[in-house]
Amino acid sequence: MKPSGIVTFTTDFGLTDDYVGLLHGAIYRVSPDVKIVNLCHNLVPGEIHAAAFLLLHDHAQFPAGTVHVAVVDPGVGTHREVLAAQIGDQYFLAPNNGLLHPLLEMGPVHEIRKVTNEDLFYKPISKTFHGRDIFSPVAAKLATGMPLSEVGPVTEEWQKLSLVHPEEEPAGYNGRVMLVDRFGNLITNLPPEALENHTVQIAGFRPRFVGTFSEGNPGETVCLIGSKQTVEVVINGGDAAKILGLGVGTTVRALAND
Amino acid sequence: MKPSGIVTFTTDFGLTDDYVGLLHGAIYRVSPDVKIVNLCHNLVPGEIHAAAFLLLHDHAQFPAGTVHVAVVDPGVGTHREVLAAQIGDQYFLAPNNGLLHPLLEMGPVHEIRKVTNEDLFYKPISKTFHGRDIFSPVAAKLATGMPLSEVGPVTEEWQKLSLVHPEEEPAGYNGRVMLVDRFGNLITNLPPEALENHTVQIAGFRPRFVGTFSEGNPGETVCLIGSKQTVEVVINGGDAAKILGLGVGTTVRALAND
Amino acid sequence: MKPSGIVTFTTDFGLTDDYVGLLHGAIYRVSPDVKIVNLCHNLVPGEIHAAAFLLLHDHAQFPAGTVHVAVVDPGVGTHREVLAAQIGDQYFLAPNNGLLHPLLEMGPVHEIRKVTNEDLFYKPISKTFHGRDIFSPVAAKLATGMPLSEVGPVTEEWQKLSLVHPEEEPAGYNGRVMLVDRFGNLITNLPPEALENHTVQIAGFRPRFVGTFSEGNPGETVCLIGSKQTVEVVINGGDAAKILGLGVGTTVRALAND
Repeated sequence: MKPSGIVTFTTDFGLTDDYVGLLHGAIYRVSPDVKIVNLCHNLVPGEIHAAAFLLLHDHAQFPAGTVHVAVVDPGVGTHREVLAAQIGDQYFLAPNNGLLHPLLEMGPVHEIRKVTNEDLFYKPISKTFHGRDIFSPVAAKLATGMPLSEVGPVTEEWQKLSLVHPEEEPAGYNGRVMLVDRFGNLITNLPPEALENHTVQIAGFRPRFVGTFSEGNPGETVCLIGSKQTVEVVINGGDAAKILGLGVGTTVRALAND
Repeated sequence: MKPSGIVTFTTDFGLTDDYVGLLHGAIYRVSPDVKIVNLCHNLVPGEIHAAAFLLLHDHAQFPAGTVHVAVVDPGVGTHREVLAAQIGDQYFLAPNNGLLHPLLEMGPVHEIRKVTNEDLFYKPISKTFHGRDIFSPVAAKLATGMPLSEVGPVTEEWQKLSLVHPEEEPAGYNGRVMLVDRFGNLITNLPPEALENHTVQIAGFRPRFVGTFSEGNPGETVCLIGSKQTVEVVINGGDAAKILGLGVGTTVRALAND
Repeated sequence: MKPSGIVTFTTDFGLTDDYVGLLHGAIYRVSPDVKIVNLCHNLVPGEIHAAAFLLLHDHAQFPAGTVHVAVVDPGVGTHREVLAAQIGDQYFLAPNNGLLHPLLEMGPVHEIRKVTNEDLFYKPISKTFHGRDIFSPVAAKLATGMPLSEVGPVTEEWQKLSLVHPEEEPAGYNGRVMLVDRFGNLITNLPPEALENHTVQIAGFRPRFVGTFSEGNPGETVCLIGSKQTVEVVINGGDAAKILGLGVGTTVRALAND
């Protein structure tokens, strides 16, 4: 597959330090012609579920042949492996900590490999910043045409991750708040079907289903299909997370109407 | 007019989520050769006045043929229109909610159109994220040479917006704090003339006019001509907004000396 | 030396306003083909030491011929000079306030000049935003091939800066917390040698030396060699700065074991 020349980053590095700038430098050391997208750098530190959810829903917004790098990596410096995969028409690079599991489940998986070829890394390899020393140079090389087979051997095993998809039960869906955005919208993993003949329940609230923000009355907690094609719990003109005191990890259910 | 190949974004989407990354992806889906500038993504949510003020003062800092996208859009998902315009030697794309009014007043307006050509949009069009689905693909196409006439029909009507310029009265100017920056500087819409033979008055203070930050005594509230060529109320080495307890929307007057 | 076509920015401008977007615009007015890296924009306002430390440790991560612009500039608008230098295989541009001193000490210094050629600047030159009006256009011109000699006359004098390197004493090293990152890690200027046969001491704590974050027990204050090849004081899974109540400027010692 021909690379698009684009690398995206999804991390918990934040934007206050030089970490992201160093990722960009590490890309440009391979080639200043790579296009870089900061998809998200402000994930809750260590929140692998949020990273997995975000990548699952966002990757298809990029051209075929894009390299998606996700580094939420509480195990940095230990012996956890790095995986590189072609899934559908996109490339992915992430620690083997479950982050890629939902994408690998979705498929189609064309190829999945362990990243072991140290010739591709920057030396000395630090013990705390593999984003710069391992992920970025490998991503840049893939983005400029290196075959995936160069990174290391094929593997068929990878860490699993639960909770990214809701559980389906006879009574309905048992989901989770995956992300809270700048506006305080609670972005859940409930699919659009959960709004048909179901009632959403979150922390004692049963928010009404509306089409757009502005259909909610001021101060009213409502739910709608958000831009990731999942259910969001929101307040028109208000910060739902703050007002309701809820955040990432909150359980959200969709109960079948009888 | 030949496009510069540059797209700028002015939004209230913030930098904590993946929204800005998705705008960039939406641009690169049209062409990875477009250059993207994040002009500002941290406007106070829904603050159309700030967006209008910022674009009015900043657009001329970019090469001719740049496409400026401004999405502060409390009406997203409702039937508000999207406007595209060539004003002077630059292109603008924004919701029809007053955001472009000060620029259209300034002129010269070469062309103003409603953006109605759905062939240009990404499908499915979400109800909550037109920045990604409508504004970005249209901007990228304009930036890569699509004529403005493709977006939709010419219009001569648009939403008005007050408060971006100060009112001029016999007694002087009646202005407003439009932006508060990282340093706590209060950026007002008072023109440089308001410092000639006038006394600035804000919340009971009458700050002295100085040339640069460092002419203010430590802790002294002063005013100067800022980088947008408007009056700013600042404290040398201090956060004026916090110390004075003032923010966006505060009234600021320049009273003619008798 | 052939430029890489890359410009990096290290500033205290923050990411909440349009200042960084205007820097990018100012670069693109010279050439939209320059690649821009936001190395760091969230330095503590006025913290020249942090800027100097960061640039000293990060510059070598970029290709030869990169132009590094550092604007932490409490003296903006006063008569402080601007310096441009070629040090090793990289270019640097900064106010003459000590920011470049550690790099100039390190060398090899090929050329150092005062930036005085006003033909290179954007007019009118504001009194508050030389990043946009002076630094950016000069950087973009250097990045696109203008010889360094064009900026102004050679100089051999520059402002000194202490505290970026630790003092070495018979009893050990006397260092400083230079940066606090998003995770609350306290990044010090102590070299790796300070962990050999020395005991680190910070605010009454004597943190144990470990190889990686995960070797620390939960809640235990430890130290390790971070990604800048200096000592960092960290808590595995915790925010050391908040938990210990320490920040930039805190003294950190490495006492020789007897």
